[in-house]
Amino acid sequence: MRHSASHLLATAVMELWPNTKLAIGPAIENGFYYDFDFLNPVSEADFPKIEAKMAEIKAKNLDFTKKDVSIEEAKKLFSNQPYKLELVDELAKIEGVKLSDLQGVKLNIYKMENFIDLCKGPHVEKGSDIGPIKLLSLAGAYWRGSEKNKMLTRVYGTCFPTQKELDDYLNFLEEAKKRDHRTIGKELDLFSIDDYVGPGLILWHPKLSIVREEIELYWRKQHRKHGYQYVYTPHVGLDNLWKTSGHLDFFKEGMFPLMAMELKNKEERGSYYIKPMNCPFHVRIFKSRTRSYRDLPLRWCELGSVYRYEESGVLHGMLRVRGFTQDDAHIICREDQFVEEVNQILDFALELNHDFGFDNLNVYLSTRDRENLSKYVGEEKVWQLAEKTLKEILEKRKISYKEDIGGAKFYGPSIDLKAVDALGREWQGTTIQLDMNLPAKFGMVYVGEDGKEHVPVMIHRTLLGAMERFVGTLIEHYAGAFPVWLAPVQVKIIPISDKSLDYAQKIKEKLFSEEIRVEVDDRSERMQAKIRDAEKEKVPYMLVVGPKEAESESVSVRVRGEKDLGLMSFDQFLALIKEDIAKKRQVC
Amino acid sequence: MRHSASHLLATAVMELWPNTKLAIGPAIENGFYYDFDFLNPVSEADFPKIEAKMAEIKAKNLDFTKKDVSIEEAKKLFSNQPYKLELVDELAKIEGVKLSDLQGVKLNIYKMENFIDLCKGPHVEKGSDIGPIKLLSLAGAYWRGSEKNKMLTRVYGTCFPTQKELDDYLNFLEEAKKRDHRTIGKELDLFSIDDYVGPGLILWHPKLSIVREEIELYWRKQHRKHGYQYVYTPHVGLDNLWKTSGHLDFFKEGMFPLMAMELKNKEERGSYYIKPMNCPFHVRIFKSRTRSYRDLPLRWCELGSVYRYEESGVLHGMLRVRGFTQDDAHIICREDQFVEEVNQILDFALELNHDFGFDNLNVYLSTRDRENLSKYVGEEKVWQLAEKTLKEILEKRKISYKEDIGGAKFYGPSIDLKAVDALGREWQGTTIQLDMNLPAKFGMVYVGEDGKEHVPVMIHRTLLGAMERFVGTLIEHYAGAFPVWLAPVQVKIIPISDKSLDYAQKIKEKLFSEEIRVEVDDRSERMQAKIRDAEKEKVPYMLVVGPKEAESESVSVRVRGEKDLGLMSFDQFLALIKEDIAKKRQVC
Repeated sequence: MRHSASHLLATAVMELWPNTKLAIGPAIENGFYYDFDFLNPVSEADFPKIEAKMAEIKAKNLDFTKKDVSIEEAKKLFSNQPYKLELVDELAKIEGVKLSDLQGVKLNIYKMENFIDLCKGPHVEKGSDIGPIKLLSLAGAYWRGSEKNKMLTRVYGTCFPTQKELDDYLNFLEEAKKRDHRTIGKELDLFSIDDYVGPGLILWHPKLSIVREEIELYWRKQHRKHGYQYVYTPHVGLDNLWKTSGHLDFFKEGMFPLMAMELKNKEERGSYYIKPMNCPFHVRIFKSRTRSYRDLPLRWCELGSVYRYEESGVLHGMLRVRGFTQDDAHIICREDQFVEEVNQILDFALELNHDFGFDNLNVYLSTRDRENLSKYVGEEKVWQLAEKTLKEILEKRKISYKEDIGGAKFYGPSIDLKAVDALGREWQGTTIQLDMNLPAKFGMVYVGEDGKEHVPVMIHRTLLGAMERFVGTLIEHYAGAFPVWLAPVQVKIIPISDKSLDYAQKIKEKLFSEEIRVEVDDRSERMQAKIRDAEKEKVPYMLVVGPKEAESESVSVRVRGEKDLGLMSFDQFLALIKEDIAKKRQVC
Repeated sequence: MRHSASHLLATAVMELWPNTKLAIGPAIENGFYYDFDFLNPVSEADFPKIEAKMAEIKAKNLDFTKKDVSIEEAKKLFSNQPYKLELVDELAKIEGVKLSDLQGVKLNIYKMENFIDLCKGPHVEKGSDIGPIKLLSLAGAYWRGSEKNKMLTRVYGTCFPTQKELDDYLNFLEEAKKRDHRTIGKELDLFSIDDYVGPGLILWHPKLSIVREEIELYWRKQHRKHGYQYVYTPHVGLDNLWKTSGHLDFFKEGMFPLMAMELKNKEERGSYYIKPMNCPFHVRIFKSRTRSYRDLPLRWCELGSVYRYEESGVLHGMLRVRGFTQDDAHIICREDQFVEEVNQILDFALELNHDFGFDNLNVYLSTRDRENLSKYVGEEKVWQLAEKTLKEILEKRKISYKEDIGGAKFYGPSIDLKAVDALGREWQGTTIQLDMNLPAKFGMVYVGEDGKEHVPVMIHRTLLGAMERFVGTLIEHYAGAFPVWLAPVQVKIIPISDKSLDYAQKIKEKLFSEEIRVEVDDRSERMQAKIRDAEKEKVPYMLVVGPKEAESESVSVRVRGEKDLGLMSFDQFLALIKEDIAKKRQVC
């Protein structure tokens, strides 16, 4: 239906601007687009006109008809459409097909009204089968995605079976736009990405850094509680390390380029790579001394900053970046321990996600792409065992999951939990990877109860994923209105006039000494304006203070979102906010 | 005197092994050395023989006589000493001196007994003026320090005016050796440096990571209290950033080599450098929005990991490394604010140093090397003002200081505090750098009260310096016996037999839930052996538990260093250790 809608769009455009050249128009997730080469520029202001024309054509309820044509016929049909001709030529040049055979080749075309398109279909039967349509946006797009080609105009639209569904989707888009972490990040001075620093690298401004500090503090506490030990490792390592780990064989495309040490000094051997993962460093710590079966399991965690090369085109705010800090851990254990360890990690992950308001999680079992086995290190039977074990763990816990074929890392399969946010969107977070390959590759051993050397099993896991992506997700999930324990500014004190400034300062000092993040709005603005600005800043508590409050050592408490809690004593308020923080209340 | 002792050493060596070839033998800090090319290998086992011969010669109390000789004469005197001849030839080839002038050139030689050396002096008058001597060690050393030349044998020794001073120094060396953080680091499983990772890069093992975590936690708390805000910035930045900051012009030698992005993708512009400093990133955050005079001072801190290239020969454990985490901060303020800010930082630095047991601090004012002005960025008058202001601040506070000429960074002078440790050694820590140059270079401005743009002043500062060096220093300062608040394991529970294991576990759980770092020694060893091992591990508290303790809910408390506190109730002990931690007591 959406593909048919894109034909309808092209039909309307050709009727309005007959000299337009057509590129392609597929259906995509939640909608469709069509790329046009307009003679004169078209803007979003033209959407009503296009939509009206589309409605007019749709009302005729014409049939979509399919036809097979020869290449010669196709070339004639599209003689005025250079992009279509290029596609026809390409289809005609399918490798391995002899020229003589081409005579028999038929191309599919679809026709509706006077509009004909080169298209494999399928389509709806007639115009009235297409549900309500909305054009959404307009963007530049290179012909065939290459910068070397001409920039075309891409018109995005969507269409749903019913008006209700369309409206819901448009509301969702509206809400998602309001929650876009890039917009909120700018408005609330949370972070920036800087041309001098480089694409995909996040500068965390003071306000968002507090959010991250609080998360990290909590994360460290929880990890100690769960029997983890912290380690710190460098951000660079020699080529030999990455060769041994397999990264230079299986992950090189994702790594930043080498730092050639001979450029510094001819006597320096090797090159450094900035780390794309933390595991090889944890392995080297393991290997720094003899380990006994009594030492296992070792649970080593690190907030490790890693750097991965991604094409600049796919980068997206804090959600898809080139530099990020993983909340990483490696559990090194015996074969008789790893099932229990995976189960413990699952429990820990559920607990942690819950504390950030993510109780709705979609579960995936990420396995190998069996048609691309050269992408993975290790033996077939080891992979089979690892995949089978993870599957059994999920099934025993009666967790329903989907299989993500090809989602495994090069060293092992994983269980992935994706958090579902306030808008029902899925975000990558927890991953628990079972690795029975790298330990052998690195020659990791422990001395067993039998006095012999055994190879341990390694579990790689992150619970939040990456701080950048996780906090970016939180911004969207909370629409910038962080719960009190995370809010950059937890309390804004608003004196009703300069006469109450002293009392405001006194309250501020008291809260500050209790480690509450507090600011006084001492501008000479009207109280209502100050409240409005604090609301805009998404500060959870506003304390309005005047002579009445000063006299009774109290505060008038307003909650973000225009709730008024009225007058309470300072101590009452302190107890209230402390409880919000201690309980990590999602709303105040 | 020490230089004369080195001649005495060479005299003795030549008498014992007349075919030895002599290189050079200077006085150094706390001693002297002489480099020899021995015909047959000599070892430290030969030291008594050499020392006896030196004593014998010294007893003759012969004079040191100085003589001027021509180059021709020198060549004759040293005809049998190829290294000396090479030096004579070199002295004869002084650039810009005409050959005819060389006739008049005289070289100094010193003679004592039959030993003659090419030497500018000065020396003591006679053998008896040399104090008590001790040969210390033996090491390989390339002739003229180049790997291309022959490896010679360097004999180190020292000599002091009195036997008492020599003995004190030898005791100091013994003590320093025992405290060597590399030895302790290995014994206590604190850290490692790994061939696969690279020289000068520290892997922090779990036990030392706890120490660092505690320090960082405390550091963050203190910084919030002192009005700082935290920021997080990436570890890499584009070449444009480092060009603008001046690092590529003034600090390139200290930077790791570039990561050329064209190796990833021809369409990628520029190259990345891993950061040697954090300042340019903080500057970019400042520049991400308009700043007003009301926003200043901004105090932004970051535990920022930086990487600097150092020759591998100068690296030393955790104390001189290639990768380190600075406890960095940048204060961006108005001209009328920076004197007050420097004073506040000084107060903060004294407070923080005190909490780590460093009350004895040597103060330095680091200024430019005026004979190398091309090493510095910025105008003469700005430098003069900055140097003068820091000097005035110190003088107003009546702090006595030394000037460290050439110690300034390329962008400004600094006040440096060096901590004096338990052995009286000086360690680099706090540095407060006044920078009136980079803000202009980066085009940093704020809108003043007058509505016009002004350039702010920037203060770069670290209080602890680098986590690696600071914690390495702490290991040596405490000889591995960290105070309770930092100790990796704070309590070791020692059941007197397996029958008391349940009670031991119960006590452990109770302490663990109070966030005390606790271990039970459940090995089937004798109690005394367990105590000895806990002492070796430098655990501050050992709780010995048996049936008597179980019955009365109490513990028998032993303190590291064989102090016995006797029986106390569990609650009493808990209160005691909590107070140790809260007060950061240096000894328990």
